[in-house]
Formats: sequence, structure tokens, C-alpha cells
Amino acid sequence: MNFDELALELHKKYKGKITVELRDNDELTREKLSAYYTPGVAAVSKAIVENPENLKEYTWTNNLVAVISDGSSVLGLGNIGPKASMPVMEGKSLLFNHFADIDSVPITLDVHSPDEIVATIKAIAPSFGAINLEDIGAPQCFEIEERLKKELEIPVFHDDQHGTAIVVLAGLINAMKVTGRELRDAKIVVSGVGAAGTAIIKLLSKYAQPRIFAVDSKGVISANRTDLNEHKKEILKYSNLSGIDGSLSDIIQGADIFIGVSRAGLVTKEMVGSMDKDPIIFALANPTPEIMPDEAKAAGAAIIATGRSDMPNQVNNALAFPGIFRGALDNGVKQITDEHKLAAAKVIAELVERPTTDEIIPSVMDDRLVPSIAKVIV
Amino acid sequence: MNFDELALELHKKYKGKITVELRDNDELTREKLSAYYTPGVAAVSKAIVENPENLKEYTWTNNLVAVISDGSSVLGLGNIGPKASMPVMEGKSLLFNHFADIDSVPITLDVHSPDEIVATIKAIAPSFGAINLEDIGAPQCFEIEERLKKELEIPVFHDDQHGTAIVVLAGLINAMKVTGRELRDAKIVVSGVGAAGTAIIKLLSKYAQPRIFAVDSKGVISANRTDLNEHKKEILKYSNLSGIDGSLSDIIQGADIFIGVSRAGLVTKEMVGSMDKDPIIFALANPTPEIMPDEAKAAGAAIIATGRSDMPNQVNNALAFPGIFRGALDNGVKQITDEHKLAAAKVIAELVERPTTDEIIPSVMDDRLVPSIAKVIV
Repeated sequence: MNFDELALELHKKYKGKITVELRDNDELTREKLSAYYTPGVAAVSKAIVENPENLKEYTWTNNLVAVISDGSSVLGLGNIGPKASMPVMEGKSLLFNHFADIDSVPITLDVHSPDEIVATIKAIAPSFGAINLEDIGAPQCFEIEERLKKELEIPVFHDDQHGTAIVVLAGLINAMKVTGRELRDAKIVVSGVGAAGTAIIKLLSKYAQPRIFAVDSKGVISANRTDLNEHKKEILKYSNLSGIDGSLSDIIQGADIFIGVSRAGLVTKEMVGSMDKDPIIFALANPTPEIMPDEAKAAGAAIIATGRSDMPNQVNNALAFPGIFRGALDNGVKQITDEHKLAAAKVIAELVERPTTDEIIPSVMDDRLVPSIAKVIV
Repeated sequence: MNFDELALELHKKYKGKITVELRDNDELTREKLSAYYTPGVAAVSKAIVENPENLKEYTWTNNLVAVISDGSSVLGLGNIGPKASMPVMEGKSLLFNHFADIDSVPITLDVHSPDEIVATIKAIAPSFGAINLEDIGAPQCFEIEERLKKELEIPVFHDDQHGTAIVVLAGLINAMKVTGRELRDAKIVVSGVGAAGTAIIKLLSKYAQPRIFAVDSKGVISANRTDLNEHKKEILKYSNLSGIDGSLSDIIQGADIFIGVSRAGLVTKEMVGSMDKDPIIFALANPTPEIMPDEAKAAGAAIIATGRSDMPNQVNNALAFPGIFRGALDNGVKQITDEHKLAAAKVIAELVERPTTDEIIPSVMDDRLVPSIAKVIV
């Protein structure tokens, strides 16, 4: 189905997707207005002056996530800036509301350097209970998240990195069960080292230290290359410890798992045929995967996952982020750690009681997801 | 009534005052999610890339006002900072929703210099349809508003200045009718030259060029004083053109109108007695006026207005700002001009069909206010 027309029609009809309402649905008498605003509200402000922790007792910040982007790396659209990225961020706020009853406000930024983005987010941070960074390009997204995590006392989570990594790990845990493998013994090729690829490499490494090879448009990332920026050098801590050089078609030979967060059509049948027996293919390029599922199957793939909702095994961030933030807000968590991410991945995997080749990941509509994940974000 | 207890009780019960809901109340099918978020939303983003004006056709920004404060000058509380000021700003967002069906988000800032505040607001401006500055101290509020008005393409309105000035002018228009005066012939003393006092002086001057004298804690502001900062020197353009020196009790003699936005108990019965016949007293210090209404009446005041809801003639910003922003958003107005403010004041005054000493200003509950004001913000 082509969703473009429906999207334009719905957005035009409602003139946007979210709205602000009052929590108190009873009649707002003049007396109540004097309690919600001046003069009564002064008592509430004084209670927060006395103890800043009261902020979450008395204001909506206890349930509030800012979805923040500079529009520099929007899925399938690239660097479209703050205005054109607003519908995407407002959509993310809709998902927060729909899946996890979280109040969420989209904030799109007209600044783009890490210094300016960090300064702006720090300046507005007291207004929110948590921050979801979204669609900020690599490598600046890494510095931005790292600095904010250090400098703010509320959770900061770049969903393009960690949401994707959590769901990929969840899917791999079940794919290992289905194909009778152990992740720690696997050879894994990750194509694409932007936000998602990097986070996937780090999280898989943290989980089981498998043999990982990262590939960019120039080939395998190895210490022998002279064109690596700081960010790609950092990836060498988690990948290619044996120092192998080569192209994607070289390194994919004998691999157990291919994870693509790169571009459409990059993987050929021959490449799949050169992998280990019963290979696992996560072809996550959107909207067109690195290889189409039917081709991959024909070439011998045991399991294939994509980013698409019209194919089995959809790797979708919406499986993870609503529960992650629900837990962080409810449990007063101030940092989303690697342990939280690993725990969330395991919980997501466990929700599929009997994994099969066509069901390694639960449906995004599974209403056990949010409460189950929230419970482990403590 | 003491509103403190009710305020604490209500804020605790609801854990804040506002919440985000979805505009589309029908079932969110998987198909609709694909239109509201990826992949369908890309078509909406592309439409905004092609024409940035589409932002207001397709996103909630068309009905969205940010209430922004650094918490440096909160009514009756002073410089309490971003966290403790959040309940007040969230209350303002509640008023926007309640009176004008405007979506509003409170943003409290952890930065305080004009440069930092301007940079932060410019950075987040694409996220909103209009900006209401609130409770930012003088004189920095003047520079902040002025720079933002120049540099942004959405309306910026510092309500503590202009909301108050509009309602004061509305009240004075009717007070003139009741006491058979013309504003252009009046001698007016304004006590307090912070955000509100300054805006009142400028708007009255624009409306009728009456003789205005501004008074601060050191006495009448005059060109002979050597202690004036740039902001107070600016006030000399609109006041004390004859260069008179003296104290409040000197200058109030023979005045037709006293407007206090200063502090409790500043005005004595003797001062009121020394004014012109049937003097008009706007004693707007909150929560305790410069002189209590019964005292002022006993000393001969014809009309007295205060900021209090439990006394007649309440000068309340909520009479003006909901309609101002409703009009600005609906009519695509990019700047709130002096002409808009004058027009709004006239409309508010006209809503009182037969003004009397006890009714020069409509009730904040008058549901003609918002549509009537919105109509003249074009």
C-alpha cells in the first residue's frame, strides 16, 4: 500500500497529530483557576523551591518526554532541517502517547553544531522528564548524546542508536535459538556504521563478544586503513580484532549473520550463498532492504528480518522505546545504561514463546511489551 | 479564601495540569500508524520541504504557543529559577487551553543572560506557532523581546508587559467615560517601571499622549537624575517632558490617575486626597495593592481597580492574551504591533456596555472576549 495519500489526507484533516488537554476534566471554576494559577500556584512553586524533587510530584514533567531533532538525518529524507522534520517528530510523540501513555512534545532545532545543540537542550532540560534524541546525523549524534548524558540529570536516549540496537539484539537472541547457534560463537558482518550500526556493534559486543566485522562504503573497517575518522577508529575496539582487510563480498564469506543498516540492494544472492549454513540476514535499510526476503531465502537464508511492516520479522524501534521511557519515568531512572538495554532486549526476545523462522520478534501491537520492558528499567 | 491548600491538593492529585492527547480519536490501526509515522509521514515532510508554509497546514504548530520563562521574576516569588517556575508556566498553558483552545507547552530555561535566552529561543522557534514570554525580569526582558521580534518570523509577546498594558488601557478608557474625562488631558502617575510599568507608559503614550510621570523607589524619573540606567532613560521619551523632580507624594498632587505596579501599601489616604477631583486609582501590586479599595474610596477615589479576583475591576492579563494569540495564530499575524494592542484594548473596553465605577472591565469569564479580540488581530 502507498501510504503517502493517506498521510497527506490525515495530516490535512486534523492539522497535526497531537493536542494539549487538561488533566482535570471537571468544570474549571473561578476558584480552581485561582488554585491552578495565581495566587494558589505560588504554594506549589514554593514547595519546589524547598525541594526540587517535588517538580515531579506537582508538574507534568513526571510523564513528559521531549522528542528532539535538528532534522539533519531523517529516515529516507536526509538533512531536511527543523521545519520539514516536524511531522516526523510529532509522529514520534504520537507513538509515545499511543503505546505508553507518555506525554511527549516534539522540539525541532534550528541549530546544528554539537556545541549549539548541547547548549540548547541543556537550557530547556528543566522543562522535561526525559529526552529522546531523534534523527541527528552521525558522527555528531555520538558526541551530543555523550555530553548530554554527563551534564543532565534526566535520561537522554538517542533512539536511532539504541532503540534499533535493542531490537536487533532481541531478534538475534531468538534467531540463535531457531538455528541452534550461540551468539558468542558467531561471525557477524555489520554493513553501515552510522548511528544504528555503531550502537548495534557496541551492544552485541557487550552482550556476547562475538566476532564482528564492520563495513562501510570503502570496505571492512580495519586498523590498516588511513581514511578513518575518530568515530570509525572507535569501532575498532569492538570489531575486526584480527585486522582483516577486504570488501563486503570478501568478509561476508562464512559469516553466520549479516546486519545491514546501509542501503538498498547492497547484498547479492551470491553473497548470501557464500555465508555459513543457515545464515541469518537482517536487511534493515528502509524502505528497500539490502536484499529482498524472497531472494535471500532462495539463496539459502534461514531467517530474514527487515524494517518493513509488510514482511515478517519487522525490526521496529517502537518495540523498545515506549517501554524504556515508561520505565525510566516511573522508576526515577536518571541514566539509560548498557545493562538496561541488554535487559530490554532479553525481555523483548522472551515475549516470543516459541520463536520460528518467521517470528523471532513480537508484534509492535503486543500490549505486553511496555509493561514488561518498563519493569526492567530500574 | 486561602488557595494554597486547594492548589497543593489539586496539583498532587493530577500530578500536573496538562497532558498531550491525539487529535484523531478513532482507532489507530496499523495502517494509520504507517501514515502518521514512517513510511507515510515522509510525504508530509516533503510537502514542507517544497513549501515551508505547509508547516502550519500539516503540523500542530498552527495552534501552538510556547510559554517561556527563565523563572527570574515570578509574580510574588521573584527569582525562583526554571524548576520552581514550572507550575506557573504550566498554569499559563492551562489558561491558553481553557480560554482560547490553544495548545500550549511550558518551557522553563536554565539560562539567564539575554544572549543565552535569545539563542535558545531562536534554536527551538521552528517548533512553535507563537511565543509568549513570561516572568522574565526587567530590564533584560526588553532586550530579549526586541531581539526576538526582529529575528523570528513568528509572533513574540511578553505578556507581563503588553497584556497588562492592554487591560490597563481598556480599564482607563471606561474610567474616562464614567468620570467624564478625556485621557489626552489627564495627568497620570505610574509607580513602578519594571516590565508592566514601562509597557503601560508606552501604550498610554501611543494612545493619547497624556502627561505621564513615572516614579521609581527614588522618586520621579527625570532627566536631572544621574542614577538612571539606559532603560529608565528610555522612559523619559514618554514621560516627564517638563522635567519635574520630586517624590511620589509631590507628583501625585493634582493627578487624575494613579497606576501602581510597584508594592503593597505605597499609597496613603493623604496622597489620594491630594489628587484631582474624582481620582482614578489602579493599585495593581499583587497580592496586596498599593492602597486597599475601601481606604482609597474613603479618601475620595471615584474608581479603583486592583489585580485581585475578590474585588471589583480586576486588571487581569487573562482578559487579553488568549484573544491576542487566538487572533495571531488564526490570522497568520507575524508581529503583534502597537496597533494590535490599541485595538485589543478598545475591544475589551467596548464589551462593557454601560461602564460604572464598579464595572470598567469585563469579567475574565466573558466568553465574547476571545472572539472579539481575535477579530482585530489581523
